[in-house]
Amino acid sequence: MNYFESSIDLHRKFQGKLAIQSLVPLETRDDLSLAYTPGVAAPSEAIAKDKSLAYELTMKGRTVAIVTDGSAVLGLGNIGPEAGLPVMEGKAILFKRFANIDAFPLCLATQNSDEIVETVKRIAPGFGAIQLEDIAAPRCFEIEERLIRELDVPVMHDDQHGTAVVILAGLLNALRVVEKSLKEVKIVISGSGAAGLASGRLLWDAGARFMTMIDSQGILAMGRNGMNAYKDEFAQRINPENKQGTLTDAIQGADVFIGVSKANLVTSDMVRSMAKDPIIFAMANPSPEIMPDIAKEAGAAVIATGRSDFPNQVNNVLVFPGMFLGVLEGRLPKFTNTMRLAAAHALAGMVEHPTRERILPSALETDVARIVADAIKRA
Amino acid sequence: MNYFESSIDLHRKFQGKLAIQSLVPLETRDDLSLAYTPGVAAPSEAIAKDKSLAYELTMKGRTVAIVTDGSAVLGLGNIGPEAGLPVMEGKAILFKRFANIDAFPLCLATQNSDEIVETVKRIAPGFGAIQLEDIAAPRCFEIEERLIRELDVPVMHDDQHGTAVVILAGLLNALRVVEKSLKEVKIVISGSGAAGLASGRLLWDAGARFMTMIDSQGILAMGRNGMNAYKDEFAQRINPENKQGTLTDAIQGADVFIGVSKANLVTSDMVRSMAKDPIIFAMANPSPEIMPDIAKEAGAAVIATGRSDFPNQVNNVLVFPGMFLGVLEGRLPKFTNTMRLAAAHALAGMVEHPTRERILPSALETDVARIVADAIKRA
Repeated sequence: MNYFESSIDLHRKFQGKLAIQSLVPLETRDDLSLAYTPGVAAPSEAIAKDKSLAYELTMKGRTVAIVTDGSAVLGLGNIGPEAGLPVMEGKAILFKRFANIDAFPLCLATQNSDEIVETVKRIAPGFGAIQLEDIAAPRCFEIEERLIRELDVPVMHDDQHGTAVVILAGLLNALRVVEKSLKEVKIVISGSGAAGLASGRLLWDAGARFMTMIDSQGILAMGRNGMNAYKDEFAQRINPENKQGTLTDAIQGADVFIGVSKANLVTSDMVRSMAKDPIIFAMANPSPEIMPDIAKEAGAAVIATGRSDFPNQVNNVLVFPGMFLGVLEGRLPKFTNTMRLAAAHALAGMVEHPTRERILPSALETDVARIVADAIKRA
Repeated sequence: MNYFESSIDLHRKFQGKLAIQSLVPLETRDDLSLAYTPGVAAPSEAIAKDKSLAYELTMKGRTVAIVTDGSAVLGLGNIGPEAGLPVMEGKAILFKRFANIDAFPLCLATQNSDEIVETVKRIAPGFGAIQLEDIAAPRCFEIEERLIRELDVPVMHDDQHGTAVVILAGLLNALRVVEKSLKEVKIVISGSGAAGLASGRLLWDAGARFMTMIDSQGILAMGRNGMNAYKDEFAQRINPENKQGTLTDAIQGADVFIGVSKANLVTSDMVRSMAKDPIIFAMANPSPEIMPDIAKEAGAAVIATGRSDFPNQVNNVLVFPGMFLGVLEGRLPKFTNTMRLAAAHALAGMVEHPTRERILPSALETDVARIVADAIKRA
């Protein structure tokens, strides 16, 4: 199947993918009198007296705003809010399908951090949680930090934490397949944007100690060109000796390659230069850093991508529905690191005997979100 | 039935009223590959090249943002954004039920005009049109004017224009029942907020010339206390002699009373003081200016309210679904006065032989929105 042409056809046929649905009947006068005027005055007045009743009497408690500025959409870059909408509609229907959460896309006509923060705060009253999506680094970090501080509903930038959690979960099981330990393996992360930095930090918190991070200008090192405060902080932690070099240098002898960068960065020769039984997570979207068949031919032991059409999909669709379900059900005010580690372990635990072709459950296994949500609530 | 208690039960049972629905299947890997990654990259890239394709490949062309600041919710007043949400969810499901439009509520945490304008402009890219809702006068006028000027999608403040259109439509038929002419009757409008002023203006454009407008301080007159620029402009037009007085003074000898103000303002004696065969539109929500049975006993010829549980519901649910359907289907950039007059006449025309108990079609007659939409497109 040509997914690209077929996807255009599908989107044209339905004029997008998301629709509104009424949960209550609207067939008789009485129906209208209950759902609308005069009856609707009663829940409105009740909430006016006690705001927390919005969680019981409105959709707030099961609704997520998916907010983007269209600046980092998939691997396509800064394509703007309208062009981001198909991806946001996609996220929204995944929320519905996998966690029965009612999420709605908001594509903003601004890429200014202050304005994004301000706007999200202003639309927040109707939502139980906020998912930030496809906002470019480094401003995504500041925006998320500020919103977490200033809002009383949970906020999560999915490109950071959804990706970090699913990568950690997948890696835990990939390492079981090749019988290596997270604490000992050499890991190269390609990409120091939202996904790269958040994954690096979560892997660190999970025990990884030998990491190199690469961006388009080479190994992250303090004082190098093209750094920012967030890269600096992480480089200081993982590269205290201030090693410099290219991807080719970094990948040599590595046990794990994690790509959250862009298409076709990794060659067969690079894979061959890695340690025995290398693990490749080539997660650039829609085209991975190296195609799975090429990586396999070059000797990769475990290969994963972000796509639904190859085995080992390491995609945050395994994570965000369950994480939001957990905070909404538990009425938890924030996402925490403890929750993220718990979610990764719960997800990895769903595959009892990981193999080269199956390190993670499929998104289509019905209890993924439930298991992640329960882990969140326990954490 | 006690609508108020039953409505609380209904809202609690479903946790509000509105849900998200996927229009596409999400059961197989292929489904995911088309609706989400990798396939979704194709519509995103197409829209990045040609923004107008958002109307074909996303929900934009069938989606309306319902925006409120919670400052004038029904007749309940300034109860805040959370408390406004049940009403906004109600509007959204009415859009779906009556025009198959996918509308979503946005309840804003600001009541500052500049901030509301700014916020609506920022969230606009994902929507085909904007409905402003339950925003207090006079700032609702400025907010609507600025958004109409500054956005390229249609914007309508429903409390103004939805109400004005349905009042004009209802009045045209009520006047046929009592065999009087719009150009000759004396009309008292109680309420000089969003609904009152917009209705007064539209009735003027339709030919009414003998109007008195009342607010909580009496007859609108230039230079009186409690006026504003919008009231001044209208008072100058309808009250050039600068008459002053109370509701009791104004209603004496009037043919028509239109209330968009608050509960229990009108007494039996006031109705008895009106001209022969008086028409009473008592549209305060949820409790009308006078209860229909009392008005009838006092001699009213035609009585209408905004509620679903009495005959003659003069409610903008007859108007807004069709008006938005018209501009969305026709991809029209703005709502105009010509459209509003056309909509009112189309709506009135749906009742061939108006009677005291039936001046307008019921919202539940399936072709109301279609007939209004077609009138909008022809106008």
